[in-house]
Amino acid sequence: MSALDRIRVVLVRPKNPGNVGAVARAMKNMGLVDLVLVAPRAFRRSRAEVLAIHARDVLERARVVASLAEAVADCGRVFGTTCRPGAYRRRAANPREAAVEILEAACGNPVALVFGPEDTGLSNEDLRLCDALVRIPSHADYPSLNVAQAAVVCFYEIFVARHRPLPEPVQLATSAEVERLLERWKQALLAIGFLHEANPDRILFSLRRLLGRALLEKRDAAILLGIASQILWFAQGGREVALEKARRGLPLK
Amino acid sequence: MSALDRIRVVLVRPKNPGNVGAVARAMKNMGLVDLVLVAPRAFRRSRAEVLAIHARDVLERARVVASLAEAVADCGRVFGTTCRPGAYRRRAANPREAAVEILEAACGNPVALVFGPEDTGLSNEDLRLCDALVRIPSHADYPSLNVAQAAVVCFYEIFVARHRPLPEPVQLATSAEVERLLERWKQALLAIGFLHEANPDRILFSLRRLLGRALLEKRDAAILLGIASQILWFAQGGREVALEKARRGLPLK
Repeated sequence: MSALDRIRVVLVRPKNPGNVGAVARAMKNMGLVDLVLVAPRAFRRSRAEVLAIHARDVLERARVVASLAEAVADCGRVFGTTCRPGAYRRRAANPREAAVEILEAACGNPVALVFGPEDTGLSNEDLRLCDALVRIPSHADYPSLNVAQAAVVCFYEIFVARHRPLPEPVQLATSAEVERLLERWKQALLAIGFLHEANPDRILFSLRRLLGRALLEKRDAAILLGIASQILWFAQGGREVALEKARRGLPLK
Repeated sequence: MSALDRIRVVLVRPKNPGNVGAVARAMKNMGLVDLVLVAPRAFRRSRAEVLAIHARDVLERARVVASLAEAVADCGRVFGTTCRPGAYRRRAANPREAAVEILEAACGNPVALVFGPEDTGLSNEDLRLCDALVRIPSHADYPSLNVAQAAVVCFYEIFVARHRPLPEPVQLATSAEVERLLERWKQALLAIGFLHEANPDRILFSLRRLLGRALLEKRDAAILLGIASQILWFAQGGREVALEKARRGLPLK
């Protein structure tokens, strides 16, 4: 199994089967094979096949899932594409930089490259599942590329970058592990009053992107999960133990 | 008039108006404006417009001519695209190399970038009019890209070569800020019993490396410092407040 085989192309809520077919063709042109469709709208395989031409095998192997979380659960890194600016879209890499990172991560882990719906692109909700962002440089007058054209540019850069020497593989935390980790931190930060129940998301999103940039390894994730669990224990059980000791006149430590 | 304005995109005998529209969109995305169609087959502007989306102005300005010779007559250099090997197709540049040559020539001359028909590509006859060839690297199993996808890869390389985008500036946390941050975390993790006074260093070193990989921004550092401070407050002051309340028989919350 090569690094290219571990790169998963994920199309989120695609509207136009023709675009799905065009993406499949571009994948085949650039040696990619793993396509996942998240909740495609009115998907007709026969219409996609017209544009897939000689890439019908890619379409036939494509899986359809209900959510982006499901599509990327086992992935070590998740790259989201965007053409829009905004608070949730800062620090996007260009496709050339991203291609190198994607190939490095794909040496030892499944990696996802995620494209949003034709009309809106990826939502903030979708971007929460992404470790890193990719933005294709384009003209300010009309920055939004067709999804299959954005896809072929990214695939081309991956294909070109593939010839570079690759580093030692590391075991990255999977997307599902990162989600579990963030959920535990959310509980811990709520318990000590750092987050407020009403609006925890902005801070959590910053933490999410920080972890994404850090190329979180499984052992890092284990340490961070341990810290959050200890905060929670302390805030809940630990505090009661302290109170109980005080009631009995025992020393605190 | 900029170099981009002097780059002419020439589509030779295109069959599918949708592809013409998709090429027009890709041109607009990458700041190109001059489109010429050579003897298009059954061209219906209305069908091309569907895929051009916001690039209808490019389509409206497009000229239709009878021959490739006519399309490129005034050009200083003519670049033909091909995905096939063969005697007439030797020494093709890749799009990255070609982009530099195209831009250099376009500083003082009209330059043509020529794409062939969807089914056959450029003929040997067409290639006789070309000064240089461009071939997009692709997988040997299925090297032939859709014409609009081949076009966007070439346009993207020209755009990147022209603009050389710099990364978005970010305000990184300084080394001293990171040291202060880690010292606060050390205190916090000792206070909740996650670290042991005897040997705190291994875990702290893992955290240090994780922050290093994350290219920590000032605002990220502020959030992390805030979390550590809150843990410390909770573990020290917060706990005492709780004990004091218990001593006076007040409810904990």
